[in-house]
Amino acid sequence: MRTLIDELPASKIREVANAAMGRSDVLAFWFGESDEPTPQFIRDAAVRSIGEGETFYSHNLGLAELRDAIARYVGSLHPAVGSDRIAVTSSGVSALMLAMQALVGAGDEVVAVVPVWPNLTAQPVILGAHVTRFPLRPSADGAWRLDVEGLKRAVTDRTRVLLVNSPNNPTGWTLTCAEQESLLAHCRSTGTWIVADEVYERIFFGAAGEGAACAPSFAFGEAGAGSAAPSFLDIAGAGDRLIVVHSFSKSFLMTGWRLGWLVLPAGMAPALAKLIEFNTSCAPVFVQRAGLAALAQAATFVPGLVERLKGCRDTLLPRLAALPGVQVATPPGGLYAFFRVPGSDDSLAFAKRLVEGAGLGLAPGAAFGPEGEGWLRWCFASHDPRRLVEGVDRLAAFLAL
Amino acid sequence: MRTLIDELPASKIREVANAAMGRSDVLAFWFGESDEPTPQFIRDAAVRSIGEGETFYSHNLGLAELRDAIARYVGSLHPAVGSDRIAVTSSGVSALMLAMQALVGAGDEVVAVVPVWPNLTAQPVILGAHVTRFPLRPSADGAWRLDVEGLKRAVTDRTRVLLVNSPNNPTGWTLTCAEQESLLAHCRSTGTWIVADEVYERIFFGAAGEGAACAPSFAFGEAGAGSAAPSFLDIAGAGDRLIVVHSFSKSFLMTGWRLGWLVLPAGMAPALAKLIEFNTSCAPVFVQRAGLAALAQAATFVPGLVERLKGCRDTLLPRLAALPGVQVATPPGGLYAFFRVPGSDDSLAFAKRLVEGAGLGLAPGAAFGPEGEGWLRWCFASHDPRRLVEGVDRLAAFLAL
Repeated sequence: MRTLIDELPASKIREVANAAMGRSDVLAFWFGESDEPTPQFIRDAAVRSIGEGETFYSHNLGLAELRDAIARYVGSLHPAVGSDRIAVTSSGVSALMLAMQALVGAGDEVVAVVPVWPNLTAQPVILGAHVTRFPLRPSADGAWRLDVEGLKRAVTDRTRVLLVNSPNNPTGWTLTCAEQESLLAHCRSTGTWIVADEVYERIFFGAAGEGAACAPSFAFGEAGAGSAAPSFLDIAGAGDRLIVVHSFSKSFLMTGWRLGWLVLPAGMAPALAKLIEFNTSCAPVFVQRAGLAALAQAATFVPGLVERLKGCRDTLLPRLAALPGVQVATPPGGLYAFFRVPGSDDSLAFAKRLVEGAGLGLAPGAAFGPEGEGWLRWCFASHDPRRLVEGVDRLAAFLAL
Repeated sequence: MRTLIDELPASKIREVANAAMGRSDVLAFWFGESDEPTPQFIRDAAVRSIGEGETFYSHNLGLAELRDAIARYVGSLHPAVGSDRIAVTSSGVSALMLAMQALVGAGDEVVAVVPVWPNLTAQPVILGAHVTRFPLRPSADGAWRLDVEGLKRAVTDRTRVLLVNSPNNPTGWTLTCAEQESLLAHCRSTGTWIVADEVYERIFFGAAGEGAACAPSFAFGEAGAGSAAPSFLDIAGAGDRLIVVHSFSKSFLMTGWRLGWLVLPAGMAPALAKLIEFNTSCAPVFVQRAGLAALAQAATFVPGLVERLKGCRDTLLPRLAALPGVQVATPPGGLYAFFRVPGSDDSLAFAKRLVEGAGLGLAPGAAFGPEGEGWLRWCFASHDPRRLVEGVDRLAAFLAL
């Protein structure tokens, strides 16, 4: 086996979850998904498709009608995008891997804004690229901030890809439109590609101001009452070196379906079709039908989900913040509270003790890179916010020991 | 974009299929799948799982019960394999890509036996490896043969991976057990990994003799009346540098489900779990339930399917061979007749003319590499063998023009 594969870190989240093996009394908030199953209307569409025998190979880039529907959906939140710029993928993580394969090879330099979901930085390593980690920094109030000027100094004409996940998993940090404009202008000057993981764009609770989108007319368009976090799609053109990665997982409670998409520059879809052929060939048609059903009700479903998630956030955060010694900010986007408590300096050991001693399952910040060490990630997506209250009670009791 | 991605050949099969766009009168035999939908009992299992809300993330390596069932199934055809050596993947092609990622990086040498399904040789190129093509050679009777001694000379201690697909797509060529033993012994001496794409192992019609498995006791074991082509698993140990790639697609009419698996050396599964996390994270649980249902009835379903496919082969091949000037052999395994006719020297152009002039859709041999140029691939998997007879009639009429 390749040494670098052997050396890739295994998931520290799974390591904590394994510590709970065989226990049914653990309140688990470690994974990045809701405890709600996929809505019935989405499941029904897949069941119909399976019943009709749609069990054959399909187009590499996805069903034409799904590419059209995705283009309309994206265009309801951002400036119009043609369906020829959409590629359907077998999950958001597959979409990211495809983008990486298209852009980086051995020796190429990738600059990644961190801490971040570990898959983003592992993929270029698998391809032999070199990853430079550019850290967000936590303020005393618990919010994480980007030194935009520092990042621009780190991205040079030798940088092949700038990798940004905003709204960010795990910190909730979200790029402002002004920051995106500054980064895009810089990357145009260095010839650097931007790969933007925007899978949490709809899970955005930001008020007007710092987090607001460039183009509010798009943010409240055809898709209905919802809004979206600032996106590079609001400011970039079809000719920019920009690939935006999306997923059905978070906005439609579809984590287990493995369906995502890419928004590509004009003319790049044929290359992605080849890469999809060589990676997974196509997404199952019945899964794509589920995606079509989801998008058809996006205008009503997503804002309702976001409202419920906001309720979850606003249940968890004040209670968490009220615990003695906790450092935490209310995240403008995403599914997570990212915080530290007295004693959590070794976040993996602390998370394991928390499982054993309090029956509370959180993700260790170290899972997202050394920059997250000392912090803990709590996924607040739950059908029943009382679970969050019970979780805080367990944490409080544990801290008081 | 990376130049090497831009230069990857696009599918020549799709190019022919595109030439038929908008026509409903084409008899299409170009893709490697049956025209039968997945059996109802397999579809029912997925529908039940979706109904029960199994729509969440799952284990990277697959459901424990599916890994167990796959290990039992493999062990019914070959020597016993522990479920700790099984990884469930989101398609056979994904399984191959994962194996490649585990083994090869920039500058590594891969030797591939060709002509072959183009995905196998494209994957190492994406990873920056160098692919040396070792050609099978057609005999005057149309059968393709391997110069085993020549292949062994081509595989040196600088060769990281030997890539073999047997039964082979497109030629039907199938390794004998003696050839496998010779290759395994050689690769042990050079330290070379064998990545064996054995997805057609059950689609094997070989009589006793050249094509027979090493261990007939395994070939007629628990799985029932069926047999399997010779497999490296019959002769290799858990410590050998061998990865075997499998898929539910061909043996269970499940092409559109994107479900496959890997048989790994002992101790390698944790590394694959990481790679699966970074590529697709997991296969949908409801797709895995479909796979469980398929395996539960493998002993009755697969032999019945193989019998029907044998009927298809034995309908097509004699008729094809009877056409004037056709060079073709009856394949011992796989889903394909691979043949040449007068005028097919430029196989892509010929296949396009065949669509336009005869309404017959075949895959051009050039799609499988320059070694296949001049040949045509005909997938004979059909629920209705009369379609094959009609196809031969169309070809005969076209050739007589």
